[in-house]
Amino acid sequence: MGEWRRLGGEIVFDAGIFRLRRDAYEHEGLPTRPFYVLESNTWINVVPVTPAGEIVLVRQYRHGIQQTTLEVPGGLVDLRDEDPAAAAVRELLEETGHRGAPPELLGAVSSNPAILDNRTHCFVVRDARPVGAPNPDPHEDVSVEIHPAQRVREMVLKGEIHHSLSACALMLFFLQRRDA
Amino acid sequence: MGEWRRLGGEIVFDAGIFRLRRDAYEHEGLPTRPFYVLESNTWINVVPVTPAGEIVLVRQYRHGIQQTTLEVPGGLVDLRDEDPAAAAVRELLEETGHRGAPPELLGAVSSNPAILDNRTHCFVVRDARPVGAPNPDPHEDVSVEIHPAQRVREMVLKGEIHHSLSACALMLFFLQRRDA
Repeated sequence: MGEWRRLGGEIVFDAGIFRLRRDAYEHEGLPTRPFYVLESNTWINVVPVTPAGEIVLVRQYRHGIQQTTLEVPGGLVDLRDEDPAAAAVRELLEETGHRGAPPELLGAVSSNPAILDNRTHCFVVRDARPVGAPNPDPHEDVSVEIHPAQRVREMVLKGEIHHSLSACALMLFFLQRRDA
Repeated sequence: MGEWRRLGGEIVFDAGIFRLRRDAYEHEGLPTRPFYVLESNTWINVVPVTPAGEIVLVRQYRHGIQQTTLEVPGGLVDLRDEDPAAAAVRELLEETGHRGAPPELLGAVSSNPAILDNRTHCFVVRDARPVGAPNPDPHEDVSVEIHPAQRVREMVLKGEIHHSLSACALMLFFLQRRDA
């Protein structure tokens, strides 16, 4: 493959949760069209498994598709270099009121390497139990749903759970569990 | 959950492959901060399986992370309302020079329902065989790699294949195959 060389970039729009950057490139020594990249912080999500083998999910309104979706809990790593596992514990507690064993990394994916610069770290938290009421951010309008793992697996395969990054975390969990 | 009502939107930046839109909302009757959405066409990707049970992958430079990644073939559905399955056949041929049986839908995910308005349709194409040389777009600098399915499964679980949407397609394939 020919060599790509990034000549520079400039922020063309700041949307708060991400910034849109225009990058200039050379490919094999020749200038190309500009490429657009969203700069964002690391994202995390969590598969919370209860002692009974259920999975704790959240339903929330998603503005990209103007519908509610069923997802695993998750969010952004805080700007002040928060550890991704610590962010997983925090988001799980805020969104669902649950705590559990220390997060175990299922894997980390590139959120979308064509247009996003960040990664999503996917964790499992076993032995998740309610310790209080959820306390989501004011702009997060979240309700909690708890389903047996087998039913959640079916929801992913049938497209009832269709957020790509939630599906990644859950499928990493199901594929690894079957190896055990 | 409280009701979300979209009051309107305006395009604030056109990046070619997507447009950035700012939407105004009310939540439970009160105005909220703006939400930013990327408008894009439907995306597709394909798990191409050879008669020997190998999977045809592509390696390409991804400008979001400034690295090459190993992925399943894929791309955008053409603007002129192309059928997603037809786009899968077209992209598979363009990027890898392979053709196979008619695409079967593994599932469709929301590419990222928080910030993107589109879906990614994931297909499997069985009996994929080389029929000519790849013919990618000039700005697509793609090389083809063919690996046994079991090795590809391992690459997903180890994070060697880490594009979230490629991982989704492959894990849908592996989870469904194990059900068979």
